[in-house]
Amino acid sequence: MKKIASLVLALAAIATSVPATAQFAKPEDAIKYRKSALFVMQQNFGRVAAMAQGKAPFDAKIAAESAATAEFMIKLPWAGFGDGTDKGETKAEAKIWTDKAKFNEYAQKAEQEMAKLSAAAKSGNLENIKPAVVAVGGACKTCHDAFRKS
Amino acid sequence: MKKIASLVLALAAIATSVPATAQFAKPEDAIKYRKSALFVMQQNFGRVAAMAQGKAPFDAKIAAESAATAEFMIKLPWAGFGDGTDKGETKAEAKIWTDKAKFNEYAQKAEQEMAKLSAAAKSGNLENIKPAVVAVGGACKTCHDAFRKS
Repeated sequence: MKKIASLVLALAAIATSVPATAQFAKPEDAIKYRKSALFVMQQNFGRVAAMAQGKAPFDAKIAAESAATAEFMIKLPWAGFGDGTDKGETKAEAKIWTDKAKFNEYAQKAEQEMAKLSAAAKSGNLENIKPAVVAVGGACKTCHDAFRKS
Repeated sequence: MKKIASLVLALAAIATSVPATAQFAKPEDAIKYRKSALFVMQQNFGRVAAMAQGKAPFDAKIAAESAATAEFMIKLPWAGFGDGTDKGETKAEAKIWTDKAKFNEYAQKAEQEMAKLSAAAKSGNLENIKPAVVAVGGACKTCHDAFRKS
């Protein structure tokens, strides 16, 4: 209980604060950071999506854990889109840096939909999870269509 | 408050459950997953370590946030070391799969030291953070020396 309480306090502290601008030693690190965070997120989201789409057997515990991890991860990549990180090994469109307000709006929308999916997954009911997965997928696609090179 | 409460519940749920074995579509995904999780962890830990070593100005808020993120991240890579993930783009030593008990012990030690660092960072006192950073660095090195190709 003590350990959980301390974790809960730690995470409440995160939840109450706007993420600070992450400091990266070099632009390549920022690019690798956002790609890494997105990959870890996508693997966890993908596991839940596969269950929602009937491509994998539904396991309520794994779904809830994976969705909770995806919910944490989706908050991380954005710190890696700082100025000067538009060149290099990236599919990021230059528009990200000229229309930051729209980019941030889409990022926030993805976070919100993932939080809803995580809540749905905690319900343990696949019928709650299905529409939430579709909404997350839509939020991802909206941002990718606008800001990611294909 | 409501949002925080829901996050706290979500994370309490994680804290009370042992991570399920992650399912990856292919071994390359598992390898990429563990490398990605370790990179995101290392970037956050490195930020705190730089402050502890006087290489970056101390910012208590960034230190606490980064350490909390590192504490979350350090739990993720191990799911990517399943059977059949010893070949490919990896520096993982084959010993990981023949001495899994030792590997798991080292992984757990790293998690424990990172949890202590996260608690220290929440104190806002750099003098508490310094020895905790050294302990995390030691736990990383012990595992790398034994199980990672140089």
